[in-house]
Amino acid sequence: MRILLDVSDMTIDHLDHVEINLQPIGRRISIPIGITILEASQIAGIELSTICGGTGTCGGCKIRLLEGEISPINPTELELFSGDEIESGFRLACQAKILSSVRIEIPPESLTTSQRLQIEGREIELSFDPVVIRVDISLTAPDLHDLRADYSRIKEYLQSIGYSNINIRFPTLREISTQLRAHHWEATLAIKGNEIIAILPKGNEIYGIAVDVGTTKLAAYLVDLSNGNTVSKRGAMNPQISYGEDVISRIGYVNNHEDGTKILQSRLVDTLNDLISQLVQEADISNHQIVEAVIVGNTAMHHLFAGLPVHQLGTAPYVPVISDALEIPVFNIGLDINRGATIYLPPNVAGYVGADHVAMLLAAKAAEHRQDAHTIVSLDIGTNTEISLYHWGRHLSCSCASGPAFEGAHIREGMRAAPGAIERVRLNEKQVQIKTIGNIPPVGICGSGILDTVSELLTHHVIDARGVFIGEHPKLHRINGKYEFILASAEESGHGRNVVVTRHDVNEIQLAKGAIRAGVEVLLDEAGITDSDIDEFIIAGAFGTYLDLESAIRIGMFPDLPRNRFQQIGNAAGLGAKALLISKGMRTKADQIVEEVEYIELTTQPGFTDAYMEALAFN
Amino acid sequence: MRILLDVSDMTIDHLDHVEINLQPIGRRISIPIGITILEASQIAGIELSTICGGTGTCGGCKIRLLEGEISPINPTELELFSGDEIESGFRLACQAKILSSVRIEIPPESLTTSQRLQIEGREIELSFDPVVIRVDISLTAPDLHDLRADYSRIKEYLQSIGYSNINIRFPTLREISTQLRAHHWEATLAIKGNEIIAILPKGNEIYGIAVDVGTTKLAAYLVDLSNGNTVSKRGAMNPQISYGEDVISRIGYVNNHEDGTKILQSRLVDTLNDLISQLVQEADISNHQIVEAVIVGNTAMHHLFAGLPVHQLGTAPYVPVISDALEIPVFNIGLDINRGATIYLPPNVAGYVGADHVAMLLAAKAAEHRQDAHTIVSLDIGTNTEISLYHWGRHLSCSCASGPAFEGAHIREGMRAAPGAIERVRLNEKQVQIKTIGNIPPVGICGSGILDTVSELLTHHVIDARGVFIGEHPKLHRINGKYEFILASAEESGHGRNVVVTRHDVNEIQLAKGAIRAGVEVLLDEAGITDSDIDEFIIAGAFGTYLDLESAIRIGMFPDLPRNRFQQIGNAAGLGAKALLISKGMRTKADQIVEEVEYIELTTQPGFTDAYMEALAFN
Repeated sequence: MRILLDVSDMTIDHLDHVEINLQPIGRRISIPIGITILEASQIAGIELSTICGGTGTCGGCKIRLLEGEISPINPTELELFSGDEIESGFRLACQAKILSSVRIEIPPESLTTSQRLQIEGREIELSFDPVVIRVDISLTAPDLHDLRADYSRIKEYLQSIGYSNINIRFPTLREISTQLRAHHWEATLAIKGNEIIAILPKGNEIYGIAVDVGTTKLAAYLVDLSNGNTVSKRGAMNPQISYGEDVISRIGYVNNHEDGTKILQSRLVDTLNDLISQLVQEADISNHQIVEAVIVGNTAMHHLFAGLPVHQLGTAPYVPVISDALEIPVFNIGLDINRGATIYLPPNVAGYVGADHVAMLLAAKAAEHRQDAHTIVSLDIGTNTEISLYHWGRHLSCSCASGPAFEGAHIREGMRAAPGAIERVRLNEKQVQIKTIGNIPPVGICGSGILDTVSELLTHHVIDARGVFIGEHPKLHRINGKYEFILASAEESGHGRNVVVTRHDVNEIQLAKGAIRAGVEVLLDEAGITDSDIDEFIIAGAFGTYLDLESAIRIGMFPDLPRNRFQQIGNAAGLGAKALLISKGMRTKADQIVEEVEYIELTTQPGFTDAYMEALAFN
Repeated sequence: MRILLDVSDMTIDHLDHVEINLQPIGRRISIPIGITILEASQIAGIELSTICGGTGTCGGCKIRLLEGEISPINPTELELFSGDEIESGFRLACQAKILSSVRIEIPPESLTTSQRLQIEGREIELSFDPVVIRVDISLTAPDLHDLRADYSRIKEYLQSIGYSNINIRFPTLREISTQLRAHHWEATLAIKGNEIIAILPKGNEIYGIAVDVGTTKLAAYLVDLSNGNTVSKRGAMNPQISYGEDVISRIGYVNNHEDGTKILQSRLVDTLNDLISQLVQEADISNHQIVEAVIVGNTAMHHLFAGLPVHQLGTAPYVPVISDALEIPVFNIGLDINRGATIYLPPNVAGYVGADHVAMLLAAKAAEHRQDAHTIVSLDIGTNTEISLYHWGRHLSCSCASGPAFEGAHIREGMRAAPGAIERVRLNEKQVQIKTIGNIPPVGICGSGILDTVSELLTHHVIDARGVFIGEHPKLHRINGKYEFILASAEESGHGRNVVVTRHDVNEIQLAKGAIRAGVEVLLDEAGITDSDIDEFIIAGAFGTYLDLESAIRIGMFPDLPRNRFQQIGNAAGLGAKALLISKGMRTKADQIVEEVEYIELTTQPGFTDAYMEALAFN
């Protein structure tokens, strides 16, 4: 293995080296041409399932080629895969040799350990006034003296108990006659507004599903609509990652493929249906009992989920098809829930301030812990960071391109928050202390780890305000004329190479934190206030939950406020989705927020460039 | 050919004779076992297309086996048909030999002459207040200072010209961004109520389609929604005939086949889509320009079209799933019109008084020619005859089982109103005068022909009031101990056999006319009035148009009123469908009618049996 050590140079100019990009984990490294994908994964520190030891008999290391060239399929693989699988690009990692730079998708079942998913949010008490209610009915059977139609029978019964002007969804109408006759003219109805949306055997509880569709991760919550309790939750990777890691590349994919919208939508819906089937199994209910869904996501995820065109989202001036809240009859989408169900998507503010941000604002609003807070900043950090400032009744929002560094991308040894990722770093004058996810040997560095590292390097004067290595430290080495700060040596790491941080990595963090801080400053400036006026500073999202607040303040990403003004609320978008599922009032509030919010387009905002330049340095 | 003459005995007990049932023409005859389907069709007087003279090379006599046994497929046929066709039962009539009683479907393209279809109705002036209107819009393009969503842009434009609280159908939302960008931010919208249902290139007219779905025939009308004019019309046979000639046998088919509902629905929808494609081609428009559809049919056709269960329609007490008017988003059905369109189905009164009857009442209402008419009977004759009595503000309706005799079924030489059918008959003491549809040699007898025959036999005392042959006439022969009245001799007929009327045929007409007359009498009785109180007597439907009024009165099917009180209005259901397409007021009226109508269930009505017994005789 030692001979492979200097492979991780990231220069892919060598003829005999190429890059492998492993999805959905997000790990990219340089490897020698000609080795198998299994060997390359091992170098990258990613453990694939290989019970047979790489002989091609167990089929455990199944992967899918997304891009690039690998050796032709061999008889061992031909025997193992169906025609469909072969056409979809499935191969065995142990058999396929890498012939060019490649992009590979690793299905979850081929991984020995799974990724950390963001399905937890702070438990915040939400108001409960459900959009769909449950009504039990008990009818008299028709006879020759009572020839009313089945539906009239239901309507008149409902009228007798106080529901008037009732309508029924067409897919549900198709079910009533069979249901009523199968269950002695008794049933449970799910009613939304004045519409019957579902008919179930009497006594069945009704449920809703809330889903946060992140660009990278999905989080789904099954909620009991009789009391608002979450009965099960599950996470998964967004399968669209295979078609582009970020929003822009997925829009590019759609622009370049005639069926692009359909493909991305159906991949997402398939994965959501898998999640739903896990959720209902865990809760021991039937899919038919799910009568409402709430989906939140950024504007691109929103459009791709709904099958709306995204071309115009990818070109200036980046306008969405719709910014109003959307209620889609489920049969337009193909989600595996009751056929009469509706999918609610909250309104969005602008092309880059999506419904997930609105959901976050709702959750943040619910999370406010000071009644007298009049100036509140809330933000959700991602490839795009959405920032909102509430100041005495005024709502300002913007979105800044903070880049994928905190997701581990564009960082030499970066990776997503999967097992083996260094997530905590502490320095003293001689040593480095690290903590990895899962407490296993380090594989790479995730967002919170690189943030900690930069903060510690600053504190110990190993780098200066410009991000240049200036200090001395036993772990700082100069290799090929460039500094590398070693977090874990080849001996300590899971793959026999040093896990290092470079000048380039530090710069990536500067760009990201600079954009975020500049966004905050522009909003404060627009409101005519300064940092110290902020009463509450709410940080949402996966990375926002795991980051070390002190580190973030140290590098200047957040202003240096009293610490009790900060709150890290976890998956606020998911929490907001749940709030929108169980509360009519929250839906009204979502409409209000969008109505009120003043969207600040940073690219045309005069003060932004100055604020950005200023925020780049570590002060 | 002469040796085949006594074949038409209808007794299929002979080992060497079987029955062939030719659909959708509805011709059934007995034929010797072992002959080809082509030969059998020739015996039945049905001309199939055979350019090659029956050698199997032209493929013109393509038919489909629905039931029964024929010779195995031979190489000639194997070469001609695709695998799909073979699986669907397609064969060549000239190659396939009949091995048992069979039911055969003849596709329209295999017939040399086509059937007479009922698409004409009396042109009655209808009020015009359309359900869908057309609005042209002209928007400003987005730029960095106007980031509104595409849909907000449309909504705000509409608001500026007076349309508020506008919504949009989801399938249409999917189209707006592409449409607007392709046409310089201009478009034509179709708006229904407060909903945008379609977006089209600016200046496009919008259209609607009205369809009368009869058990036997379909009639479709393409209507310009800007002025209510019919721009094209087409008819076709209902393809469900292959699964059962009447409503009861189709319900039976569904009960016995798991996918029955789906199969019958998709066959019907496919044929409607063919009609639509002919209509739009004739009018030189695009399918997208059709933004609303109205479908009327009896309750079973209504349910089968909508994909609603029919099991409970076939068992006492025969209740429909729904009797309210129904608006179905088109994507639930698969009709080939604008994806945002709705399909409107008028309300129905009961299991056997369907939306087609309601449509007929609307048309009859529009057709009333006397302002002072206070007592109006209207009826639509079919296998089930729906009868309605309006008397000084009171509406009574019933449905009677008049049987399929007037469609040519259960009549020895009966057939539907296709070319070659005898439709007019006049007798003198020695001779018979006949007229056939298309003025070609007689093939069989259709409903109006048999009605005329019975009337003339009565007038000339060849039969008595009981329907028994008593008189003498050169054309009356006794064969095998049974009387046959010869309308056309073997020499005159198109197929070398006598076309005759038997005692059995006369009895079938007695049963049918008795049921209709009894229905009328029961309604009059319920209202406490008699025949002479009827101010107007309106006859709708295909058979109702072609029947000879004098004959119908002569045999006692209709009361003997002054002739100016009768009106034959043609396809009233189709006319009613058109009225419902172009008038909001008519839809309100349809709801009112159903609200007001008192449905009289004849099977439980005490006076019905007596009235029926009385009406059976010819008086």
